[in-house]
Amino acid sequence: MASNTIPARELPKAVDLSHHLNKLSRSRGGSPLKHLFQCLPHPSLFPYQQLDLKVYASDAKIMPGETVHSSVDISLPQYASTNQTNTLSKAIQYCSGRGSPALTSLFRDFTSKFMRPGYADWDLLLNSGSTDGWNKVVGLLCEYGDYIIVEEHTFPSSQSLWAPMGCKGVPIKMDKDGMIPEDLERVLDKWDETHPGVKRPHLLYTVPVGQNPTGATLPFERKQAIYDTCVKYDIIICEDDPYYFLQLPEYVPLHERKEDSKVVENDTDLMKTLVSPFIHIDHQGRVIRLETMSKTLGPGNRLGYFVCNSFFAERLVHATEVVSQAPCGWSQAIIEELLKHWGQDGYIRWLLGVRENYAIRRDWICDIFHEVFDVIPAGMEHIDDFLALAKGHKEDPQAIPFFSFSYPKGGMFIYVKAYLSQNPEFKALQASGEQEPDRVWTEAFWTQLIHEDKILLTPYWFYQPIVATGEEQKKEPDVAFFRMTFSYESREDMLLGIQRLAKAFKRNWQIVD
Amino acid sequence: MASNTIPARELPKAVDLSHHLNKLSRSRGGSPLKHLFQCLPHPSLFPYQQLDLKVYASDAKIMPGETVHSSVDISLPQYASTNQTNTLSKAIQYCSGRGSPALTSLFRDFTSKFMRPGYADWDLLLNSGSTDGWNKVVGLLCEYGDYIIVEEHTFPSSQSLWAPMGCKGVPIKMDKDGMIPEDLERVLDKWDETHPGVKRPHLLYTVPVGQNPTGATLPFERKQAIYDTCVKYDIIICEDDPYYFLQLPEYVPLHERKEDSKVVENDTDLMKTLVSPFIHIDHQGRVIRLETMSKTLGPGNRLGYFVCNSFFAERLVHATEVVSQAPCGWSQAIIEELLKHWGQDGYIRWLLGVRENYAIRRDWICDIFHEVFDVIPAGMEHIDDFLALAKGHKEDPQAIPFFSFSYPKGGMFIYVKAYLSQNPEFKALQASGEQEPDRVWTEAFWTQLIHEDKILLTPYWFYQPIVATGEEQKKEPDVAFFRMTFSYESREDMLLGIQRLAKAFKRNWQIVD
Repeated sequence: MASNTIPARELPKAVDLSHHLNKLSRSRGGSPLKHLFQCLPHPSLFPYQQLDLKVYASDAKIMPGETVHSSVDISLPQYASTNQTNTLSKAIQYCSGRGSPALTSLFRDFTSKFMRPGYADWDLLLNSGSTDGWNKVVGLLCEYGDYIIVEEHTFPSSQSLWAPMGCKGVPIKMDKDGMIPEDLERVLDKWDETHPGVKRPHLLYTVPVGQNPTGATLPFERKQAIYDTCVKYDIIICEDDPYYFLQLPEYVPLHERKEDSKVVENDTDLMKTLVSPFIHIDHQGRVIRLETMSKTLGPGNRLGYFVCNSFFAERLVHATEVVSQAPCGWSQAIIEELLKHWGQDGYIRWLLGVRENYAIRRDWICDIFHEVFDVIPAGMEHIDDFLALAKGHKEDPQAIPFFSFSYPKGGMFIYVKAYLSQNPEFKALQASGEQEPDRVWTEAFWTQLIHEDKILLTPYWFYQPIVATGEEQKKEPDVAFFRMTFSYESREDMLLGIQRLAKAFKRNWQIVD
Repeated sequence: MASNTIPARELPKAVDLSHHLNKLSRSRGGSPLKHLFQCLPHPSLFPYQQLDLKVYASDAKIMPGETVHSSVDISLPQYASTNQTNTLSKAIQYCSGRGSPALTSLFRDFTSKFMRPGYADWDLLLNSGSTDGWNKVVGLLCEYGDYIIVEEHTFPSSQSLWAPMGCKGVPIKMDKDGMIPEDLERVLDKWDETHPGVKRPHLLYTVPVGQNPTGATLPFERKQAIYDTCVKYDIIICEDDPYYFLQLPEYVPLHERKEDSKVVENDTDLMKTLVSPFIHIDHQGRVIRLETMSKTLGPGNRLGYFVCNSFFAERLVHATEVVSQAPCGWSQAIIEELLKHWGQDGYIRWLLGVRENYAIRRDWICDIFHEVFDVIPAGMEHIDDFLALAKGHKEDPQAIPFFSFSYPKGGMFIYVKAYLSQNPEFKALQASGEQEPDRVWTEAFWTQLIHEDKILLTPYWFYQPIVATGEEQKKEPDVAFFRMTFSYESREDMLLGIQRLAKAFKRNWQIVD
């Protein structure tokens, strides 16, 4: 087995982490008689007689832009016939806050085999997707005003939840491989010095694979080092991992690429190519893993699950009873049937297919970068691997790089870092004494891109963690970031967009060919 | 038009009620660029090709225990064909926190016609069912430690949400017609005297129709009086109204009942039989109505909506973005198609059918009460209309009533009030100096019912509001309550259960036939 897993061993039990609960979840009791209050509407009064769903066969070859014909039929009757455990009258009835036992059991088997949690008594519990999941994690652990450890470029929706609670982010430095463990250690070591009298953070939020917005994927050694630091400082890790199965193979430039270079054919191969999750390293039960169907079976399912210690899981069930009741019955029933039809092997084949699609899309955008810009290796002073210059400027030692980037190894994003020190408009802003020249330049450029070039990027300030006033926001000078996504557009539109972008860069940098 | 509506008039606009927001929702901003962060997975990677659903035709005659054969087919393709606005690739994609515009529009038309809000600029916004809805209402308005006005027997799940927040209930007296407006006025008038220095309550939670657990339905005059009191004391009303269309016709005893006495045939008839909702009386925008599909199209849909003023609605969208994202796409698409196929008339016919079913079930349980007990009119000292005595004891002036009850006019429940003053076990408990003889007796009887008689009722303490320590809990002495539901069992099982119950009463009251 590759070095990205932990050798087989006798699994310990979770340690007591109950002191992490906030006051609300401490006060929240579940009712052992919950089923008593529930008034069940009569299932003969649900107007659904039969559901038939045509879905892709698990071995369907899905390729960008192609129609898939291979399919299987899923059928759910209104009431049970022989051996039919999943029926509409059951799916559309009230269900336990834990979710359907059958579906939970399928996910348990899957988690046991592919995530291999590092302790014995882990638990699994459905939720209504990762937005709901993260809301419940913050509801479980955080008090108003808490500090939450985040990546220095962080997923904005996750902080939109805690920011109104007066919570603050503790940004940890990143490079192309994601959060830097040494910076986490440094921040926590110096906490009492830098934040005298302030409650220490006890929750770390991370998107470890294909991070949003940077696209970074944490290598195994970093996960291990981050986990160890969290043990040392008693921190709970929330691993929000929607792109886990979208860990992409290395990008191979077009002229070196071989057809049919696919090496992942089955689940053993797959496991070798994937960096194991935090929950696999976790030997104490301090990781709460958020798994979602959104990127692999569709966001409209609003279905995901927690993997965490059983003490937290029990509290999360109590929260579910009053916050959301249960995930939607249609999603639960449909996904249960889909996974039963596909089987575990088929589900893995499906995930491999999705991964292959995003790999092709990632290749498209990287190929187009090579086509539209001069791409050269970046020097040691750059955190990214490559620099993009105006076409024809590769050999010019005075050439100004527009931006740096790395080939994404996961997810759906490229986060490009623009270098502004030689940009005339930016220099004019600096000369004028503007306090935030990078922000003003970015806003102007971003608006130009929309109006003149019909390109919509996401500018970096969406991803800036909200920190306490007066706290050092260690921002690098003379740079700006933009997020691009390669998940959606066709290759033609991607090319068109990036050609326009190159034109806009040249215009803005006043480069004349 | 009957007196249960307000005469047609020029509708005012909502007043400014922004001071009711709690600190959290004040701090919560929505992002105008929300769609930018959202990374859309490619819809070709959703594994669904075609959904076909056989549903009841809207005129299907659904009667308890009978199979329905009349059906229509709903079909959703993966991608759009001509004139097809609802597709799987859209349904399963991310959607706005407000929910599907087409479905929202259907609900708006419906609300406009059948709820007729009393002000012009109301708004409507989907949620994931009323558990999610109530969670968001409390999240919008309540601070930790707030007092919330509730019925003196209240829905336990609703208080399980706020109790851990240190909030307290302010119970308002009820009779068979629900919350008593004069008691609400009295409590609010005396608030500063009874609660010196304590923040006044500003939220009233009510289930106005077929209340859970009492089954009471507020008459129009009470709604009007309660609303006026809420205007006077500046209180927001949360109208949790899952049973609105289950307002039942008067119970007619079996020997007087005529076959085919159904008088409701169309929506005009229906409107005359239904007491208008609080939102219809509301001329200021101070009612937040929670509507749900749970009792009419199935709880597993996890779909409902808010009707409220547009200022609150906007804040509820912001909360939705971070709390739940959006309701499940399957439910939204399926219910949209269902309602489009049925049309508004068909939907009303469906609701009438559901209502008729629960009316039949309500008749069953009331008929069985007459069959198994001696039922006599209750005297003025009873809040309920009838007393149930052991069979054959009707003519005995010394006869001990087991319990009183009223014929339910809505919902799915009968709440029976047992009279304990002549019960030997209860008297023994009193004589022993037991502090809570009613509770101890109820627990013992309830346990007996489960183990000896195989009957599961819900005892009253589940429905007791949580009040502050030291506050007067105006509990009537020597009585106990049990909730029964008539929504689920067949007539045969209902009869069997109530016969067993009668036997248990006689045993416990030591009555020998």
